[in-house]
Amino acid sequence: MQLHFLGTGAGMPSKERNTSALMVKLLDEVSEMWLFDCGEATQHQILHTSLKPRKVTKIFITHLHGDHIFGLPGFLSSRSFQGGDEPLTIFGPSGLQQWIEQTLALSKTHLTYPLRFVEVQEGIIYEDAHFTIHAKELRHVVPCYGYRIEQKDLPGELLIDKAQALGVPKGPLLGQLKNGHDIVLENGDVVLAKDVVAPAKKGFTLSVLGDTKYCEEAIQLSMGADIIVHEATFDGTTTDLAASYGHATNVEAAKVAQQAGAHYLLLNHLSARFLPYDLPQFLAEAQGIFPNTFLTADQAVYTWQHNKLF
Amino acid sequence: MQLHFLGTGAGMPSKERNTSALMVKLLDEVSEMWLFDCGEATQHQILHTSLKPRKVTKIFITHLHGDHIFGLPGFLSSRSFQGGDEPLTIFGPSGLQQWIEQTLALSKTHLTYPLRFVEVQEGIIYEDAHFTIHAKELRHVVPCYGYRIEQKDLPGELLIDKAQALGVPKGPLLGQLKNGHDIVLENGDVVLAKDVVAPAKKGFTLSVLGDTKYCEEAIQLSMGADIIVHEATFDGTTTDLAASYGHATNVEAAKVAQQAGAHYLLLNHLSARFLPYDLPQFLAEAQGIFPNTFLTADQAVYTWQHNKLF
Repeated sequence: MQLHFLGTGAGMPSKERNTSALMVKLLDEVSEMWLFDCGEATQHQILHTSLKPRKVTKIFITHLHGDHIFGLPGFLSSRSFQGGDEPLTIFGPSGLQQWIEQTLALSKTHLTYPLRFVEVQEGIIYEDAHFTIHAKELRHVVPCYGYRIEQKDLPGELLIDKAQALGVPKGPLLGQLKNGHDIVLENGDVVLAKDVVAPAKKGFTLSVLGDTKYCEEAIQLSMGADIIVHEATFDGTTTDLAASYGHATNVEAAKVAQQAGAHYLLLNHLSARFLPYDLPQFLAEAQGIFPNTFLTADQAVYTWQHNKLF
Repeated sequence: MQLHFLGTGAGMPSKERNTSALMVKLLDEVSEMWLFDCGEATQHQILHTSLKPRKVTKIFITHLHGDHIFGLPGFLSSRSFQGGDEPLTIFGPSGLQQWIEQTLALSKTHLTYPLRFVEVQEGIIYEDAHFTIHAKELRHVVPCYGYRIEQKDLPGELLIDKAQALGVPKGPLLGQLKNGHDIVLENGDVVLAKDVVAPAKKGFTLSVLGDTKYCEEAIQLSMGADIIVHEATFDGTTTDLAASYGHATNVEAAKVAQQAGAHYLLLNHLSARFLPYDLPQFLAEAQGIFPNTFLTADQAVYTWQHNKLF
């Protein structure tokens, strides 16, 4: 799993940070990519990467402020131009579907692929053999959701050497063991799956929060997460101001990660007020509370491997 | 007057050309800027210039395809963030106002300035002391307008030396002469305005066409224009294809300029199929018909001065 940050700024685009978009690459897991929020010019940011819009199968929108959605019509349209024909599902708050449909109709945009919508409410919004996704409403000035992506545990590897040592022949019996079924050999010996299959590998948990002030809901949604992506529009000098705008500070994001018992915290949605030379201090303040904190930047890529973030 | 091309590509943005937007700078004339079309990421293109969104007082939309309008919500919103408080008027086809209003409402975007709409139909759509603007429907696959901006003639300069030689004293009589009124001096001498005021300076005529196939209407709208901005999505090898998509070729654009008796032709809205090394040939084909043809590029600026384009 990789996190490719396409836009990490708040409100207006700046030369340094575009408005919100995060591509979660699940190519090894399910050969898909999932996009979280889609600010204006997200497709332009993608032009400077090797990401393929047609591989994006799901888009999750946290809330309907312009800096999180104004890139959607262009992205949907270009995915079509580029020959995307796989279905695409958009998860988002009430009102999004109508706006997208109005916008596509007005601009006479005919998509080459089926577009589906899921209106997000609290609870499980998606589940398949590999993932469960929960949504929870956060506290912003408009309805805004955070998403918790839980990868299901992966079946352990078949230990072929061990199986063969116990007399299991090459062939379909190996497959049965791998799928967790105990077997009986021709000579009557029983081979237990647990003896020849490594323990299940724990899946990851990723919590992508939308805009929010510091709140209990952010902690609840992120409990025990491997990675939290949390907004940090303000810093500790303007905590009251942050809350009044429905935003959080670097310090508050770190508290959420600490209280949720998370492993890693990535701060995004930074205000353009913070200049490059402010950032070391900005990061240090958060790390004072939660050491495993990182600042995101446009086009930064983080890789999750062996239960660590690189 | 300056033409600052912000986006000169067709359909999808590419690394080389963004979708359509042209800023017409009238700072010397009326201290305003007028924007023609506003593809996605027009505000991002502006970030790399010294152009100030709050100086934009009028936006003209040629048609409602996404590559001409998807940057509007973000531009309007950022103009507000940046403290714009001067009224802004959007001229565009039917349906645009409703979409903008729906989009601003959905995203809870509250503008700090009055936003007005003019639904464009053929004929004079704007007139003041300095300019007359005509709209004419072109031939595209959706309703699409071209705009003809005529600057009114500028009053000639007062030739002070000549006036003083004829005995006109400093003071209000000079102002009367400048305004075209003949005067009588204290000694009874008559001074004619035409003798001490230079001839009126001819205003410019600029024709900005939207997407269109080669058509009579483009020629009519551009008759005698100083500058025509014409799309050239295709080249002469695909003339039939161009027409079937409602687009024009480089050669057809040159024919429009020739038949309209224009002075300069600027080609924009180029397909990303044309690579940098194709462009000399692409330009030469048009210049074979209309020598004063230029290719536009993103961030190219043309200045109109002394009846010439630089």
